[in-house]
Amino acid sequence: MLERRTSIPVSEAVARVMKYAGEAQIEQVSINDCDGRYLGEDLVATDDVPNFDRSAFDGFAIRTEDIEGATSENPVILEVVEEIGAGDVPLKTVGLNQAVRIMTGAQMPVGATAVIPLELTETFIDQGKTKVKAKRFIEQGDYVTYRGQDMKAGTPIVEKGTYINPGVKALLATFGYHQVKVAKKPKVGVFATGSELLDVDEPLVPGKIRNSNAYMIISQIIRSGAEPVYFGKLADDLEASFAAITKALADVDILVTTGGVSVGDFDYLPIIYDRLGADVLFNKIAMRPGSVTTVAHWNGKILFGLSGNPSACYVGYELYARPIVKTLLCSKKPHLQRTKAILAEDFPKVNPFTRFVRSKIFYEDSQLYVAPSGADKSNIVSSLALCNSFIVLPGGTRGFAIGDIVDVLLLEDHDGAEWPWDQTK
Amino acid sequence: MLERRTSIPVSEAVARVMKYAGEAQIEQVSINDCDGRYLGEDLVATDDVPNFDRSAFDGFAIRTEDIEGATSENPVILEVVEEIGAGDVPLKTVGLNQAVRIMTGAQMPVGATAVIPLELTETFIDQGKTKVKAKRFIEQGDYVTYRGQDMKAGTPIVEKGTYINPGVKALLATFGYHQVKVAKKPKVGVFATGSELLDVDEPLVPGKIRNSNAYMIISQIIRSGAEPVYFGKLADDLEASFAAITKALADVDILVTTGGVSVGDFDYLPIIYDRLGADVLFNKIAMRPGSVTTVAHWNGKILFGLSGNPSACYVGYELYARPIVKTLLCSKKPHLQRTKAILAEDFPKVNPFTRFVRSKIFYEDSQLYVAPSGADKSNIVSSLALCNSFIVLPGGTRGFAIGDIVDVLLLEDHDGAEWPWDQTK
Repeated sequence: MLERRTSIPVSEAVARVMKYAGEAQIEQVSINDCDGRYLGEDLVATDDVPNFDRSAFDGFAIRTEDIEGATSENPVILEVVEEIGAGDVPLKTVGLNQAVRIMTGAQMPVGATAVIPLELTETFIDQGKTKVKAKRFIEQGDYVTYRGQDMKAGTPIVEKGTYINPGVKALLATFGYHQVKVAKKPKVGVFATGSELLDVDEPLVPGKIRNSNAYMIISQIIRSGAEPVYFGKLADDLEASFAAITKALADVDILVTTGGVSVGDFDYLPIIYDRLGADVLFNKIAMRPGSVTTVAHWNGKILFGLSGNPSACYVGYELYARPIVKTLLCSKKPHLQRTKAILAEDFPKVNPFTRFVRSKIFYEDSQLYVAPSGADKSNIVSSLALCNSFIVLPGGTRGFAIGDIVDVLLLEDHDGAEWPWDQTK
Repeated sequence: MLERRTSIPVSEAVARVMKYAGEAQIEQVSINDCDGRYLGEDLVATDDVPNFDRSAFDGFAIRTEDIEGATSENPVILEVVEEIGAGDVPLKTVGLNQAVRIMTGAQMPVGATAVIPLELTETFIDQGKTKVKAKRFIEQGDYVTYRGQDMKAGTPIVEKGTYINPGVKALLATFGYHQVKVAKKPKVGVFATGSELLDVDEPLVPGKIRNSNAYMIISQIIRSGAEPVYFGKLADDLEASFAAITKALADVDILVTTGGVSVGDFDYLPIIYDRLGADVLFNKIAMRPGSVTTVAHWNGKILFGLSGNPSACYVGYELYARPIVKTLLCSKKPHLQRTKAILAEDFPKVNPFTRFVRSKIFYEDSQLYVAPSGADKSNIVSSLALCNSFIVLPGGTRGFAIGDIVDVLLLEDHDGAEWPWDQTK
């Protein structure tokens, strides 16, 4: 018997899923292990930057009033009373016609009001004393960075939920965060379904294909910042499958299945949702590929029933599961970033429903271009390899031509979007 | 004594370094551990895709000659002789006025020439036999994907050196690569230098700052695909430093030091290179920041003497060390991808030398924009947090205005460039 399903727009489907986004859990990790994690609290300057008046150049700390009128021809001669390396603490005060040799980053001695760069000076020994010729006048404060000039203690610098890249890590180190509060990685369980699936190390036999979806989804889970837990293939047996899913749900925050959600006679995931008493949020979406994508909610966990078709499975994860993961990673922009690009190839297909075309963006002369990343047959995995974006073509359109401006969703960006679904359905 | 150094253009510096790029080492990892690694061989289709004639739709496998002229009003009635699920092998041949119920992805039975979608049919029972009404004519081959139609066995699909993303991993699984040949991660050693450096867990004291460069560089090493080995801080003692560097070189492919390469009195890395007998490729580059960046070659290893200034250190790694790492990861495009973008803010500074401004690219209406990611003071680390690109401003220019088209180098892209240095120096 054919089950009747009512399809809903993509924006509505995303909205229904997002209602069940959980609360982020925070944990502490060593700064050595924080790469690629997401900040679990705002990063705040714990000290002034710099934390002391600091030389911004290699040269001599001087009093500007001593070198008024200095030129190459008429240099002013100062006595060098101390030498301060970076990390040293100056012991002497700079007095009348005195100078202190100072390295970049070293603490300014008391009395000095500027640093004259080494290039504008000449050192010599006079009766056993080190002297320096200042060959140019400089203004008060020149080549000095004053305490707090770059940043005041207490300033929030990087927002909670930010991806920790090399620059963020440098800031964490600068401000002494040797333990870093990060969002705990949500655990995402994965089951593959389909009696046609062989393991990746099995030789092909007639009628069968190797399971690629599970590997792909695990990789998407990792890319989105979560921790995958692979439970293997669901048995063909309903009872065994129900037991396996119930058991798995105890160990994960989110459960993804691939396949088993269409209206084919052997697709019994809907039966499992029903028996579980899960609240099915939708089981049909006005989109291609992935119209059969089904999402259910049960006991604080979200169950993503993704299509068994590789492209639909890929798209389904990015549109519906990724924002849930990102929300659990403290992101305020959990969705894919949406922008516009110039279509670099004709796309003549009609689009009865919103279509997501696996695509590759590229740049030319400050313009963003996009082209389908391979033949757009939903059963070809090869188009996924180069994919770094989706072209979004609105439903009810008749095909697009090279040069047309189209919407794209970016897959490999760390900015994300608050809500990219306003304009199209 | 002030050492005299001759500065060379950036393109020349990169060229000198690239001469010493080593050979990639290949290792095998389980497909479960291949995420984010780089392919160590071309990924080739090991089988035809599909590997058998396959139904592309849920429906009935039929002989098109049997349903000529079929319409809703005048459907053709066929006898259903078998039901084939995905993964099943058809046992019967489709003969005159026969049909086989078939699921998406299942193997086509012998005799059938097309699949009529379920929606265009109606099933009923007639005298204990299952029959189906075909309500429309379809062409031969409709809704069938023939063996090898999507891809022939032997076709190279993804090139050696490609970053393994979810799509590439799906292909690896599809073609049975349960063990994946990947480029071995180059080992990059890191020493920090500078007596002003505190450990990240130490409280600030006058004259000192926390070591942030080492953490930043380690993160950059990870981002570029290599394995960092942190050796800690070099002692202030020349003998001890020499011994530590000699020992470290035995364990790594590449050695990065931060600081200790300017012409300040306490910068003794040049002395160490000299004593080691290393071939110094250059010690001054016509660029800002990072003019003191020094690279040496010794015994098949490259020693990167990066500036102690955080921004210069950051830029130095990306311009000179990253392409060496990427080459060892089999990439044919090891350099940063270069493109153009519209400047979104004035940049009034004069540029006596080629300047690399830490920046953030963003998109608006299919245009690529770029803005400095923070105050462009080379001693401010905060501008690094949002940095995903460098603006490249040619030397000898007088400042740039909002709306100007500028060159940018992209930091977070997996495409890279063969040689981005042709146009500017």
